[in-house]
Amino acid sequence: MKNSFGQSVAVTIFGESHGAAIGAVIDGLAPGIEVDESFIAFQLEKRKGPSKVSTARREKDACRILSGVFEGKTTGTPICVMIENDEQKSKDYSKTKDLARPGHADFTAFCKYHGFQDYRGGGHFSGRITAPLVAAGAIAIKALESKGIRIGTHVLSCGGINDRKFENFDDDFTLLSSLSIPVLDEKARKAVEEKIVEIRADGNSIGGVLQTVVTGMPAGVGEPWFDTVEGVLSHALFSIPAVKGVEFGAGFDFAYMTGEKANDPFRMGEKGVVTETNNNGGINGGITNGMPILFNLAIKPTPSIYKEQKTVDFIKNENSLIKIEGRHDPAIIHRAAVVADSVTAITLCDILAVRFGTDFLKG
Amino acid sequence: MKNSFGQSVAVTIFGESHGAAIGAVIDGLAPGIEVDESFIAFQLEKRKGPSKVSTARREKDACRILSGVFEGKTTGTPICVMIENDEQKSKDYSKTKDLARPGHADFTAFCKYHGFQDYRGGGHFSGRITAPLVAAGAIAIKALESKGIRIGTHVLSCGGINDRKFENFDDDFTLLSSLSIPVLDEKARKAVEEKIVEIRADGNSIGGVLQTVVTGMPAGVGEPWFDTVEGVLSHALFSIPAVKGVEFGAGFDFAYMTGEKANDPFRMGEKGVVTETNNNGGINGGITNGMPILFNLAIKPTPSIYKEQKTVDFIKNENSLIKIEGRHDPAIIHRAAVVADSVTAITLCDILAVRFGTDFLKG
Amino acid sequence: MKNSFGQSVAVTIFGESHGAAIGAVIDGLAPGIEVDESFIAFQLEKRKGPSKVSTARREKDACRILSGVFEGKTTGTPICVMIENDEQKSKDYSKTKDLARPGHADFTAFCKYHGFQDYRGGGHFSGRITAPLVAAGAIAIKALESKGIRIGTHVLSCGGINDRKFENFDDDFTLLSSLSIPVLDEKARKAVEEKIVEIRADGNSIGGVLQTVVTGMPAGVGEPWFDTVEGVLSHALFSIPAVKGVEFGAGFDFAYMTGEKANDPFRMGEKGVVTETNNNGGINGGITNGMPILFNLAIKPTPSIYKEQKTVDFIKNENSLIKIEGRHDPAIIHRAAVVADSVTAITLCDILAVRFGTDFLKG
Amino acid sequence: MKNSFGQSVAVTIFGESHGAAIGAVIDGLAPGIEVDESFIAFQLEKRKGPSKVSTARREKDACRILSGVFEGKTTGTPICVMIENDEQKSKDYSKTKDLARPGHADFTAFCKYHGFQDYRGGGHFSGRITAPLVAAGAIAIKALESKGIRIGTHVLSCGGINDRKFENFDDDFTLLSSLSIPVLDEKARKAVEEKIVEIRADGNSIGGVLQTVVTGMPAGVGEPWFDTVEGVLSHALFSIPAVKGVEFGAGFDFAYMTGEKANDPFRMGEKGVVTETNNNGGINGGITNGMPILFNLAIKPTPSIYKEQKTVDFIKNENSLIKIEGRHDPAIIHRAAVVADSVTAITLCDILAVRFGTDFLKG
Repeated sequence: MKNSFGQSVAVTIFGESHGAAIGAVIDGLAPGIEVDESFIAFQLEKRKGPSKVSTARREKDACRILSGVFEGKTTGTPICVMIENDEQKSKDYSKTKDLARPGHADFTAFCKYHGFQDYRGGGHFSGRITAPLVAAGAIAIKALESKGIRIGTHVLSCGGINDRKFENFDDDFTLLSSLSIPVLDEKARKAVEEKIVEIRADGNSIGGVLQTVVTGMPAGVGEPWFDTVEGVLSHALFSIPAVKGVEFGAGFDFAYMTGEKANDPFRMGEKGVVTETNNNGGINGGITNGMPILFNLAIKPTPSIYKEQKTVDFIKNENSLIKIEGRHDPAIIHRAAVVADSVTAITLCDILAVRFGTDFLKG
Repeated sequence: MKNSFGQSVAVTIFGESHGAAIGAVIDGLAPGIEVDESFIAFQLEKRKGPSKVSTARREKDACRILSGVFEGKTTGTPICVMIENDEQKSKDYSKTKDLARPGHADFTAFCKYHGFQDYRGGGHFSGRITAPLVAAGAIAIKALESKGIRIGTHVLSCGGINDRKFENFDDDFTLLSSLSIPVLDEKARKAVEEKIVEIRADGNSIGGVLQTVVTGMPAGVGEPWFDTVEGVLSHALFSIPAVKGVEFGAGFDFAYMTGEKANDPFRMGEKGVVTETNNNGGINGGITNGMPILFNLAIKPTPSIYKEQKTVDFIKNENSLIKIEGRHDPAIIHRAAVVADSVTAITLCDILAVRFGTDFLKG
Repeated sequence: MKNSFGQSVAVTIFGESHGAAIGAVIDGLAPGIEVDESFIAFQLEKRKGPSKVSTARREKDACRILSGVFEGKTTGTPICVMIENDEQKSKDYSKTKDLARPGHADFTAFCKYHGFQDYRGGGHFSGRITAPLVAAGAIAIKALESKGIRIGTHVLSCGGINDRKFENFDDDFTLLSSLSIPVLDEKARKAVEEKIVEIRADGNSIGGVLQTVVTGMPAGVGEPWFDTVEGVLSHALFSIPAVKGVEFGAGFDFAYMTGEKANDPFRMGEKGVVTETNNNGGINGGITNGMPILFNLAIKPTPSIYKEQKTVDFIKNENSLIKIEGRHDPAIIHRAAVVADSVTAITLCDILAVRFGTDFLKG
Repeated sequence: MKNSFGQSVAVTIFGESHGAAIGAVIDGLAPGIEVDESFIAFQLEKRKGPSKVSTARREKDACRILSGVFEGKTTGTPICVMIENDEQKSKDYSKTKDLARPGHADFTAFCKYHGFQDYRGGGHFSGRITAPLVAAGAIAIKALESKGIRIGTHVLSCGGINDRKFENFDDDFTLLSSLSIPVLDEKARKAVEEKIVEIRADGNSIGGVLQTVVTGMPAGVGEPWFDTVEGVLSHALFSIPAVKGVEFGAGFDFAYMTGEKANDPFRMGEKGVVTETNNNGGINGGITNGMPILFNLAIKPTPSIYKEQKTVDFIKNENSLIKIEGRHDPAIIHRAAVVADSVTAITLCDILAVRFGTDFLKG
């Protein structure tokens, strides 16, 4: 039970929002994988989101690779990616440090760490810690792509606006990789952007639903119990701050379906067995069936809002009020998409290495 | 990546539907916990469900404790619970063994185990394997109760019928423990029962949504990344056959909420800090805040239906048709509730032992 | 930290000396491995040792395979092997249950389990629990042999008598498999037997050194840090009761060597790279180099002796004397050899599956 | 199977000898532990050894704490310690990169990493990677000391010179902490120093035996099987480069003892139960008994020597000769002592946190 995840490919995360640096160690990636530092920078830039709909805190996020890469390729030994925090002058957090921001982890951090936690800007709980996950994920994404496995995430729903479904996965993945607000339908994209701008003006925030698809996964990967593909992926995905639900395939819609409708009939396709529908999201009995893996993530509204909120002072044990200052995201769903891609990629590298050995993704 | 789960308290599962026996080993439970064999039998009976709305296959499910219990109490060493399969004469599965039942794991098992899997009755993928989980869970449930931690699961929704919300947790938990169809509202319960009877008559099946609540959990338990309470619980819960979604608190409803509405304001309660609402399901930043843990599980319709379905023969690699014979559940949601309680209990024992040490639940 | 070990192939152990049954679950073995029940019985018989030099307690040790084997082959799902304890009428242990037998785990068990442990016959600490390890190991040994990997263990030293070194590994392995006292040199074997008979007559016990060799391991397996082959093997091997030291290759003799002598020069052999000497025991930097893996195990004398010993009553907290009755082994080194083979085999299956994937040992 | 170790307290290591930086992440340490950066620097200095008997490569080893420490104390979140490599201009290793240095990991690294490994100066296999382990260990050592648990390691034997035994643990630990060549006996210390100087002059190297003692460990910690204290400690200790054997208490000397002599009689001491002798090294049945934990480590001679050695070119697959240039240690045993202390401390923090919960070492 620690800030690490994975078995054959494992990632460990460290850092605080206002500490010296944040970073991640990804261990177990096969040797010989090309490491494209410009792609890492590109993904980190996507994570920041466009300034119009994201926080005004704009860090450089220059990622340094400290280990595990030699002559542009993975060595097979642990890769440490580090991002120095460039805003060392943190504002004065001491005034409000004992007030639990609603929806945030201040109170639970206090219960766990007894007041020794770094409270500045959310400390180790900050969404900022996802930056090294994105850096590590960028390497994993490229490794998977070299084996024909692609991942894409779009905003399925936000502020009552629904995106279209995936049509052609490859084209849609390419489109998504170019978008700072990853909504497939152009009109919906504009509408989502306007909605976020509007909610920001109100000092409020909104959530939504992300949808991720993975194509090219081989069949026969995963375990029947506990280390089901659903179980392992959800374990990792719930680490993305604001994720409060994970559903695979038809997910909660299964509640309104009959078995006749829900079952995905098997058919012989051009390259082997396929299913006519994909209500099971590419997974039967915890194991991949070769169809696209499909899941949705519930994203809660950013807890930081500009409105005054009721809370407690957990040192004085008394009721209080809090008005959060500083720069916040009115929504993080568009920024979370690239984090979902990254966490998914790292986790799939692990699942594949467990199944096929540590050389499977070798360059 | 194996059929084991947990760190300080771990469960390992074994067995096939038509093998010699099924069982589980639960290791790491504190010593001195009272083991009530009649409660184990009671829970196993609940798992079978009432015959009107469940499969006609009725095994004795006599549970033997092989180890780890001495003079009626846990010793602190691994507890093996075993249930012998009493129907040794399995029908002739060989005719249909190469036909992938839609929605089932036959095809994925073949991809993973290359034809060596025990194909009879779903083999190791059978829902029957949840029986030892329920037996192990019964011990865990009692251990938690001795520390004031209670768990209850009801059918939130099934076949379009919605249950009422929890009102008084303690009373509702007591009510649920007495029900073979765990629906809180009496009218809804009847309606669910009728719906399942109706769907059975049609040779079809239905799914639904389960809702689980845990009260009495101390605050400050869980990890900020990866081993979040949501991540660890969902990892385990996706092992329950038919679970295809897990959402905590408001879950996917967060998509339609603003931060102002979604944030749970903190207040001083009689016994300490509470929140006015519980949209976060008792968890902030991956760590318990002392409020009830609340989550919903999407349950897909039982894949075994009596209607003819399209499929493939995965040995001959050709299209085929299948009509599944035998005895099936028209719904398993009512039977899955006790499994959800059990898996939740085992997982919480682990999370608590990691946080507070291996003596925490000591009798 | 539990009674389980392994990552891709994991073993879990359960049972008490005088409980209902003892057993092990081995999970992650590839599908299609032939399971030879007569070889399991043969190995269990070897573990008992010849009656002349072993305990008079002679259990049937009939091993039942409860799961994971179908039509004589592994399915790829967890294999549970169970041995019922046939001597249910245990003698009255209650008189001495609060007296810590010197060299045994009675006192430490009390400190850990607070008096709830099953104290009869050592309970979960009994050497008897190695029987299911041997049963599981028998399957692992055959799986490895099918890939050309062989394991053999002999008594290098016991009671001042030294065995000869390995000469021809294959011949010596075959010889060892036929011996109930696994000493390669015939004269030394007789001398060891006589020594044990003599020590038994004195009511005393002796230890010794076991030496294990593994041939046929591919190069490039293991990790540079933490999961070194030495680290993983020793972790498992220290579970064998009475093992108090593990050394690889020249081990503690390195203290008297220079680098010039200690380094194993590489040379081109017939089938690839070899080393002229094998002081490193087949492992450089934690990773196999393709030479035989070689390690020695220090085995302490059986702590159960017939002489009166000083001890404490750990409930009354006072000094006392104890005279252990019942039937004991004057030495277990000859019985521990097959346990060493078994634990080594299970651990190597894991290390290989991690490296080459879960199908590596597939039948 | 990765470059991480531990369960409740885990350490992850990264870096290559000639890469950008080396480091470690230690996760799970309790919050509120005082972090003394000068003690970290002191321990890193000890690791370098005195120049007379150590390599001429003298790095600054300035350790930066990137995370997990706030206002001088641990926060409870992952601590990353990083040491930048200051000698960026590495000599030309390309000439000899395909020649396997005998006793080193060049050949096994090639087998595992297929030529993608960073071959410069041993890369990830370099003893240099122990520096961050020492930094992380320094925090762990202080955390343990605050609970009365102390660790000390001395050179028991080197070059045929034997140190005296421990007399008064506290005094001896204090003495050892002040010594750059940790030999308790002054004459022996001089003799060891002279021996190393002499062996260096000959272009050769030597090994030896280290002995580590831990006092103050509570009884009842560890597991009966697999996660025995011996198993977990040895797993970690075999990561220290050059360690090829680990023995607890009397270790391999048990081979020459009878049970009567080997068993440690229990007695009531001033503060509770003690043993008259400590042949079992403070551990019975895998669990601590409250006596000092005592183990010895076999240290092989440094494989880098100045003499010409036989080897192979593993790319050309032909025999060759190698003469290693550069700066080497004629012995590393004196430098390895502080690494042994550090690895022991980190591992014990883990074992204690598993047993008593994550707050056990809280400041």
